Amino acid sequence: MKMSAEEINQQLADLPGWHLNEAEIHCELVFKDFVSAFAFMTAGAIQAERLNHHPTWSNTYNRVNITLTTHDQGGVTDRDIQLARTFSEIAGQLGATTK
Amino acid sequence: MKMSAEEINQQLADLPGWHLNEAEIHCELVFKDFVSAFAFMTAGAIQAERLNHHPTWSNTYNRVNITLTTHDQGGVTDRDIQLARTFSEIAGQLGATTK
Repeated sequence: MKMSAEEINQQLADLPGWHLNEAEIHCELVFKDFVSAFAFMTAGAIQAERLNHHPTWSNTYNRVNITLTTHDQGGVTDRDIQLARTFSEIAGQLGATTK
Repeated sequence: MKMSAEEINQQLADLPGWHLNEAEIHCELVFKDFVSAFAFMTAGAIQAERLNHHPTWSNTYNRVNITLTTHDQGGVTDRDIQLARTFSEIAGQLGATTK
């Protein structure tokens, strides 16, 4: 179920680098190099497929930009928060910083 | 060395789905599903790293958008054409269509 902005911001409080922007949450990650950035995407892709919830994400060299939303609910749901938490955990393990 | 628009379009003539847009070449690929799209990105990432030339690319579920340019030359070079050829070959093997 679609969450309110207040609920979302509460969830994002302990997820550094994630921001709410209208009906989506965003994060920009910076890695050491391309191989580290793509290692993150590979691990993230496996988790996204496992959760059956997929990001919109882009990559240029050592940077990865992620946007999460739940299209069929027209906003951010707990599935987005769950995926954001999973992504942040992987990113931390791979030494990413957030912008 | 930066190529002219004429040279680029000549090279793209046998690369379906690739288009020149100012100082970049673009392609949008559509796969069967997320796993196929990410299989393409994984194989593409390995080739990009091998060629030491990296794309700007984005993915949403079964779609992959690719932009190639050579930043230090301020335009499209033979390295972009080479990477586009490699990407198109992998995409074809994975059953992608182009938009």
